[in-house]
Amino acid sequence: MNRKIIGKTLGFLLLLECLFLFPSAFITILDGQRDLLGAFVGTMAAALVLGGGLCFLCRKAEGRYYAREGFLIVGLGWLVLSAVGALPFWLSGEIPHYVDALFEVISGFTTTGASILTNVENMSRGLLFWRSFTHWLGGMGILVFLLAVVPMGKGGYSVHLLRAESPGPSVDKLVPKTRQSATILYSIYIALTVLCVIFLLMGGMSLFDSLCTAFGTAGTGGFGVKNDSMAGYSPYLQTVCTVFMALFGVNFSLYFLVIMGRVKDALKSEELRLYVGVIVGSIAIISWNILSLYNGNIRGAVHDAAFTVSSIITTTGFATADFDLWPQLSRTILVMLMVIGACAGSTGGGIKCSRVLILFKALGARMRQMLHPRSVNLVRLEGRRVEDETLQGVYTYMTAYCAIAALSFLLLSLDNCSLETNLTAVMACLNNIGPGLDLVGPTGNYAHFSDLSKIVLMLNMLLGRLEIFPLLIMLSPRTWKRAG
Amino acid sequence: MNRKIIGKTLGFLLLLECLFLFPSAFITILDGQRDLLGAFVGTMAAALVLGGGLCFLCRKAEGRYYAREGFLIVGLGWLVLSAVGALPFWLSGEIPHYVDALFEVISGFTTTGASILTNVENMSRGLLFWRSFTHWLGGMGILVFLLAVVPMGKGGYSVHLLRAESPGPSVDKLVPKTRQSATILYSIYIALTVLCVIFLLMGGMSLFDSLCTAFGTAGTGGFGVKNDSMAGYSPYLQTVCTVFMALFGVNFSLYFLVIMGRVKDALKSEELRLYVGVIVGSIAIISWNILSLYNGNIRGAVHDAAFTVSSIITTTGFATADFDLWPQLSRTILVMLMVIGACAGSTGGGIKCSRVLILFKALGARMRQMLHPRSVNLVRLEGRRVEDETLQGVYTYMTAYCAIAALSFLLLSLDNCSLETNLTAVMACLNNIGPGLDLVGPTGNYAHFSDLSKIVLMLNMLLGRLEIFPLLIMLSPRTWKRAG
Repeated sequence: MNRKIIGKTLGFLLLLECLFLFPSAFITILDGQRDLLGAFVGTMAAALVLGGGLCFLCRKAEGRYYAREGFLIVGLGWLVLSAVGALPFWLSGEIPHYVDALFEVISGFTTTGASILTNVENMSRGLLFWRSFTHWLGGMGILVFLLAVVPMGKGGYSVHLLRAESPGPSVDKLVPKTRQSATILYSIYIALTVLCVIFLLMGGMSLFDSLCTAFGTAGTGGFGVKNDSMAGYSPYLQTVCTVFMALFGVNFSLYFLVIMGRVKDALKSEELRLYVGVIVGSIAIISWNILSLYNGNIRGAVHDAAFTVSSIITTTGFATADFDLWPQLSRTILVMLMVIGACAGSTGGGIKCSRVLILFKALGARMRQMLHPRSVNLVRLEGRRVEDETLQGVYTYMTAYCAIAALSFLLLSLDNCSLETNLTAVMACLNNIGPGLDLVGPTGNYAHFSDLSKIVLMLNMLLGRLEIFPLLIMLSPRTWKRAG
Repeated sequence: MNRKIIGKTLGFLLLLECLFLFPSAFITILDGQRDLLGAFVGTMAAALVLGGGLCFLCRKAEGRYYAREGFLIVGLGWLVLSAVGALPFWLSGEIPHYVDALFEVISGFTTTGASILTNVENMSRGLLFWRSFTHWLGGMGILVFLLAVVPMGKGGYSVHLLRAESPGPSVDKLVPKTRQSATILYSIYIALTVLCVIFLLMGGMSLFDSLCTAFGTAGTGGFGVKNDSMAGYSPYLQTVCTVFMALFGVNFSLYFLVIMGRVKDALKSEELRLYVGVIVGSIAIISWNILSLYNGNIRGAVHDAAFTVSSIITTTGFATADFDLWPQLSRTILVMLMVIGACAGSTGGGIKCSRVLILFKALGARMRQMLHPRSVNLVRLEGRRVEDETLQGVYTYMTAYCAIAALSFLLLSLDNCSLETNLTAVMACLNNIGPGLDLVGPTGNYAHFSDLSKIVLMLNMLLGRLEIFPLLIMLSPRTWKRAG
């Protein structure tokens, strides 16, 4: 195992994190909060010393790394970033318990948006900004950022880093070079985010709120800066969010196609069609289902249904209405949207629409095979054959997903909350959504869970964001054996 | 498509059903219930006329049939048997609504044990006997019975019928000839059932109760003849059930090995070890978890935990305690046992232990492959390599299973019951258990559901018992196209 390349990359990541803390520290200075500034300076110093030290110690790292190193960089990288990223919350005393601070920052980086805070508006603006900014960083992936700005080693495995942070059943490099792909992805990401901020500012939202809201929307995270999430904003602002959440749930390679002038090809995407179909269908059914709660006000029902569906399928988690109070049909649809999630190659979580498509197509092929044992039945997606390797990947992913969900569900039950709370808490964290139902519904939070449950849910968030395997492989003893 | 062979086999099945109704009719005569006798005679006449007619019309059927015919025979066969089997309940007026009668008999044949009855003890003994007897018939499979007694056509596909009713990831013929395998399976089944009856009689249970209880135990069905299920019987009788339920959840091919003197080989079975391990582990955790409810009475807690675990993992559904009132950890474990289910090739339902094993082994192989892309990683079970074909079968089965569960969960939510009720009702029916939690818990029943929900749950029971594909293929329009 090439320990030096791992160390060097982790060092780079920490230096980047130090850099990323600057805006929050700046806001703290503007607000004149001296005590809080100490927390930021302390964290930045820690990141600088740790990161610089690692880079110095591993300065002679050879450029080559392989699968194992790739997985370990991703797994360890996210853990280290979170461990350091939690410090401002903890050092400032605004989240006095370190486990809670870690929960909050992991929820941020993984774009989950599950919170242990009961009163968000009580927080300093610097911390709120850092909290929302982690969404934006985690959304497209901090390693993808690193890939874009730092020339990484050779060996052909830097694609592992891209793959681990750009979710979906198969690697989707836009252009042959990994570094260039990473740059294009981040450019699109930044452009869309800026667009979102502009639209929010046009609706009269303050710059601070606009930035935080746009970070939460772009990363499909869902941390808000108000206690009532998005409910207090104007319908125009809510609609802007509805649209942008849905946009950030689309596969970014489609935006690349559009930029390349291949709009028709982009619109032909089967995954996009499923994604849009599910959104439209869900909005229609839920609007009809909640109409009586809105006293027949169709416009209001459709507005809230659209916001909620967009928020849940993209795994953002913003809320304008307390959907925990909706009829069972609507609640059930929302739980399903949580699992399905957004498109592959987007900033959204969940299983991803393309995996759902592949699973159903493989099922259809199998049934044809059963009827006509001698026929040849290939699984095709987006006009191409789905390789056996990809199919096996989807299946083992689903196995691991179900096993992790089941185990987490079991461990959470030790807290003796309702089955609904436990089940939706696991779904909301593993799929990186944030709010679930019952105690963890839109008006609830995760404060009441025991530390064990919080740790389980943190692992769920990381497993969900990194699509399981980097973390699972990191935690497997076999990985650390036969180290060379 | 060879319609005649389908017709002929369905005809045979109906004639068999007519025969199987005799004992219940006989009990009705003993009890002197003239009105009820009419219901039985009417049903038997209908079965005789319909079955005889089909046999006569299709008497020239050629002996060959293939995959499609196999699936259709199984799917249609179970539907026809249920449609006719529901008549005694309906004609007698004891279940006045035909949908309810159908629910009850499908629940019987599929060995689910979910009931719409609120007062079982009000029923006539003849009907109670028929209700429990359907468990016994459905447990090992009525087509397997047909295979054992009637020489079926050639073409090598009679194994389809055996496969469809003997659940598990791969066909498990005990001996090269299908017919002989069927005979051996039924012989073991009858022997074990007789043994169970003897043990129950020794505990002072009446012959009628013993027979009905043994049918419910052998088929892992769970219909009882008392309103409190098994709670009113002596601890000895409950223990007999605990042991026999667990025994009927074991792969019957292991009993065949034991008979052949290969006891060591049988004990080496990985599936058996997982099954026993899960049972012992679950009993231990639940006993500890419910101890406070039993005021520290360890013996009582272990007794009820053992009975419940054995009842749920084998998907029987008898109850001695209201496990809906147990702490969340125990309830969660029970929900998981519902899904895991018993061993392949047993009379139990659920996903089956062997599928769980295969899924986890494939996951392990995949992770080794990810770490060492050039290594060869085979999936092995019971000392043999798991064929790709079998693995694909397990994966597509799981896909279909999840899709059906999700769709059913959604349709049930229209009734606006709790999420817990809906979820566990689907799990309890799809895995052929019977009781779930909340409204469908051990003291509840399925009477309150709408007709639509009942139909959804009936389909769940059939899909679960026949392991999805026969029914799914029967319902697919493609099957009926290009009919030759």
